[in-house]
Amino acid sequence: MPSYSIKEIAGIVGGEVVGDGSIVIRGVAGIREAVPGKITFLANPKYESYLASTKASAVITAGGNGSFDGAIINIDNPYLAFLKVVRLFAQTQLEKYSRGVHPTAIIPEGVKLGEDISIGAYVVVEENVSIGDRTTLLPLVCVNDGARIGSDCLIYPHVTIREKCEIGDRVIIHSGAVIGSDGFGYARNGEEHHKIPQIGIVRIEEDVEIGANTTIDRATMGVTLIGHGSKLDNLVQIAHNVVIGENSVVAAQAGISGSTELGKNGGLAGQAGLVGHIKIGDGAIVGAQGGVTKSVPAGTSVSGYPAREHSFARKICAATARLPDLLKEFRNLQNRVDALEKGKGSGPSAEDD
Amino acid sequence: MPSYSIKEIAGIVGGEVVGDGSIVIRGVAGIREAVPGKITFLANPKYESYLASTKASAVITAGGNGSFDGAIINIDNPYLAFLKVVRLFAQTQLEKYSRGVHPTAIIPEGVKLGEDISIGAYVVVEENVSIGDRTTLLPLVCVNDGARIGSDCLIYPHVTIREKCEIGDRVIIHSGAVIGSDGFGYARNGEEHHKIPQIGIVRIEEDVEIGANTTIDRATMGVTLIGHGSKLDNLVQIAHNVVIGENSVVAAQAGISGSTELGKNGGLAGQAGLVGHIKIGDGAIVGAQGGVTKSVPAGTSVSGYPAREHSFARKICAATARLPDLLKEFRNLQNRVDALEKGKGSGPSAEDD
Amino acid sequence: MPSYSIKEIAGIVGGEVVGDGSIVIRGVAGIREAVPGKITFLANPKYESYLASTKASAVITAGGNGSFDGAIINIDNPYLAFLKVVRLFAQTQLEKYSRGVHPTAIIPEGVKLGEDISIGAYVVVEENVSIGDRTTLLPLVCVNDGARIGSDCLIYPHVTIREKCEIGDRVIIHSGAVIGSDGFGYARNGEEHHKIPQIGIVRIEEDVEIGANTTIDRATMGVTLIGHGSKLDNLVQIAHNVVIGENSVVAAQAGISGSTELGKNGGLAGQAGLVGHIKIGDGAIVGAQGGVTKSVPAGTSVSGYPAREHSFARKICAATARLPDLLKEFRNLQNRVDALEKGKGSGPSAEDD
Repeated sequence: MPSYSIKEIAGIVGGEVVGDGSIVIRGVAGIREAVPGKITFLANPKYESYLASTKASAVITAGGNGSFDGAIINIDNPYLAFLKVVRLFAQTQLEKYSRGVHPTAIIPEGVKLGEDISIGAYVVVEENVSIGDRTTLLPLVCVNDGARIGSDCLIYPHVTIREKCEIGDRVIIHSGAVIGSDGFGYARNGEEHHKIPQIGIVRIEEDVEIGANTTIDRATMGVTLIGHGSKLDNLVQIAHNVVIGENSVVAAQAGISGSTELGKNGGLAGQAGLVGHIKIGDGAIVGAQGGVTKSVPAGTSVSGYPAREHSFARKICAATARLPDLLKEFRNLQNRVDALEKGKGSGPSAEDD
Repeated sequence: MPSYSIKEIAGIVGGEVVGDGSIVIRGVAGIREAVPGKITFLANPKYESYLASTKASAVITAGGNGSFDGAIINIDNPYLAFLKVVRLFAQTQLEKYSRGVHPTAIIPEGVKLGEDISIGAYVVVEENVSIGDRTTLLPLVCVNDGARIGSDCLIYPHVTIREKCEIGDRVIIHSGAVIGSDGFGYARNGEEHHKIPQIGIVRIEEDVEIGANTTIDRATMGVTLIGHGSKLDNLVQIAHNVVIGENSVVAAQAGISGSTELGKNGGLAGQAGLVGHIKIGDGAIVGAQGGVTKSVPAGTSVSGYPAREHSFARKICAATARLPDLLKEFRNLQNRVDALEKGKGSGPSAEDD
Repeated sequence: MPSYSIKEIAGIVGGEVVGDGSIVIRGVAGIREAVPGKITFLANPKYESYLASTKASAVITAGGNGSFDGAIINIDNPYLAFLKVVRLFAQTQLEKYSRGVHPTAIIPEGVKLGEDISIGAYVVVEENVSIGDRTTLLPLVCVNDGARIGSDCLIYPHVTIREKCEIGDRVIIHSGAVIGSDGFGYARNGEEHHKIPQIGIVRIEEDVEIGANTTIDRATMGVTLIGHGSKLDNLVQIAHNVVIGENSVVAAQAGISGSTELGKNGGLAGQAGLVGHIKIGDGAIVGAQGGVTKSVPAGTSVSGYPAREHSFARKICAATARLPDLLKEFRNLQNRVDALEKGKGSGPSAEDD
């Protein structure tokens, strides 16, 4: 494990040292787990109270902080700076895996293998596949006929990449993910459902990350597309012919129905669901468990079921909490109006007496 | 790739040609992706505007359409007709895989193998399993002790079929699905949960399709049943002792709790959830994200949480959107009644002054 | 298959015989599937009506029941008693699998293997792994570098246990589960998301059960913890740095976001979701599809979205069902107040005329 002084680290991340720059750091840790010799960070104000009790020797944060008596590196984006420091101390993901092809891997003739690849035990690669330079396939991965995988990819155990699908450079796919399963399409004839062959593909652009056990269906025809730099969490469902733009984020257990488009820089929180054939504009955000039933304009946040503009959805939520009392007060007001009407000897309810 | 004239295609699907029946078609495509030489279809009115711009040479649709200048095949159910055309041009799923048993597949003596099967690399089949004619197990499938798989099935990579489970003819199971995992059953004793052995099975009838990473638990005792012709999408959860009738459809990420029965011809939209021990009648439909807390009569559509009859649920949804305004108007009306009561010098709230 | 008399079974479970204690029982079954010679149980009053029609020779229940004419074993907790009887007749899970290491399993030198283990076909174990006594790894399991698995564990096919994760004794992990996938953490810089290396682990304590295709992410730093005796169902998502206490239960398709803590003896019903960085107190319960947006005190039940104390959430639900009528009645009451105001020749709305 290498070591760096606080001054060296501040130089690398571009921050300002408050306190003793000569302190030597030998690793990184979370603010609660840190021991002397470690550097940690504080970005979320919720954790500010841990500053007084952390045993870390140094903290990266966005403002000098009186309650901590170790060294501080001040910087605008402490999370991003901390990330750089983590990488200083961590081996990169790709360095971890030894290069070469395991003797039990099945690689038919004619498969194109790049340089410096790593293919693990019991990997099955089918015909006409191509795999780019420095890509790693961990044990028990299956790559079906004609799929193309770019360079510097990392494919974890038990991933399935179905036939003809295309994976860009620097893509990470976690265990159990299924890329290119058949879209869910049937033509109904009376009570029977006839399978519509799904003859399209999935295309995953560069720098995408796909979570564990996430499923991405191939298009009926054409392409299901995950745009450059987008990140999908675990157990996400992407239906056939969905298009996700660049740099969007889809949290765990969210689902997108067929042919829906999610723009760039968008975000779906956990367990959000989108019906099919709608458009979510660039930069739009869907709250956790939000159920989106129609298109959402760019830059809009929506939440709830059915999803509505977020500030309006919050008003509705607050109002529903007052509803039980409102019902009582309403009966009371009805009685008062009854009494007023009786007092006047007239009005619609007087005849009830 | 074969080719057919519009007239030939119209004859095969039983439609009527509008325009030039001699045009030659060499493939199928979506309305947006189509290029000259391709045939496409229009079933969903949402896509009608693409008719003017599609580059397809022909369209299958349910009514002549002035804005398209290629050939048209008119037919009542354009989706079903298009499906037939897709099959004309696509190889069938089962023809794609070469026959025989890969030398790395593990098949103990006594396993019954049908004729003309295909078993891929690193497939593990345990003792007393039987596999029907023409069935395909793709690489890395695991079939545990005593399971029975019918004829003409297609089992994708990384599927697990646990011991003693029964799979009917013409069943398709997508990658990562788990058939026959233990039901989630514990007997609570104080704070501890004691596992109840799950000694039942899963039975999947003919013509069922199971999506990627879907999980179907074996019964505590008896059978978890997926009825003839039903279709389950990806990431669906079916708990122990659930019974699904014939020709029902369960969309992605929906979940059915233990011992609940879903009738025939039913439908669960995406992310719908059903509590345990209820009955969903034949032909009933649950909307997306619907949370069903009690039995649903046959033929009924329900939605929302807790799920209510769909037209009523829509009224509630519309009404909640007016709730923030209603609260304001209610205060206003209270003030007016206050004023009326004061004007009369009487009434229940006058004593507050 | 062994056989026991009713009297013997009553003695084993500590119950009281009502009827003929000499009847011989040869197996267990559900109340609807049972045939003569089988014993069943009745715990849920919903199934009481099946007592009159069951073909079982005996029933374990919590009160003598006139409508059943076979033998009865009376006992306070019939479910727990039945569990003991099931175990009498079932082989235990661990006895089922033959001991030893399959010749195709890959076990590098230096891996520590306990006594009497069972390692199936095409299992891949990486370097520095340790596996405890009597633990079973079924076919196609992958255990990455440095992971530690305790004694008497049962790991089903296609499970991935990522590097350095720790699994306690008597843990059961079902097919397709992924233990230790990377947490979903990025530092945002403009529109790009930079991956934060996830260098922590997952620790699963003793007597935990993990459902099929469930995903548990490793901590960013430190530990994602599943406490002693907790049970997770299928398709559950546990994000990085989550802590689950002892003996908690998480039903299928529920999800817990990053750094959230679920106390001991807690319960999440199906499809429940928790935002990140909150605390759910000991013994708290979240209803099905509940969306929890803030911390929940110990012993509290919550439901709905956003989750509120359960009895209050039910009142709100009931009140929303009356909302469409309320809107009509409100307009009616407004009209009556209008009329009253006009009758008096005064009031705010009189000027509208």
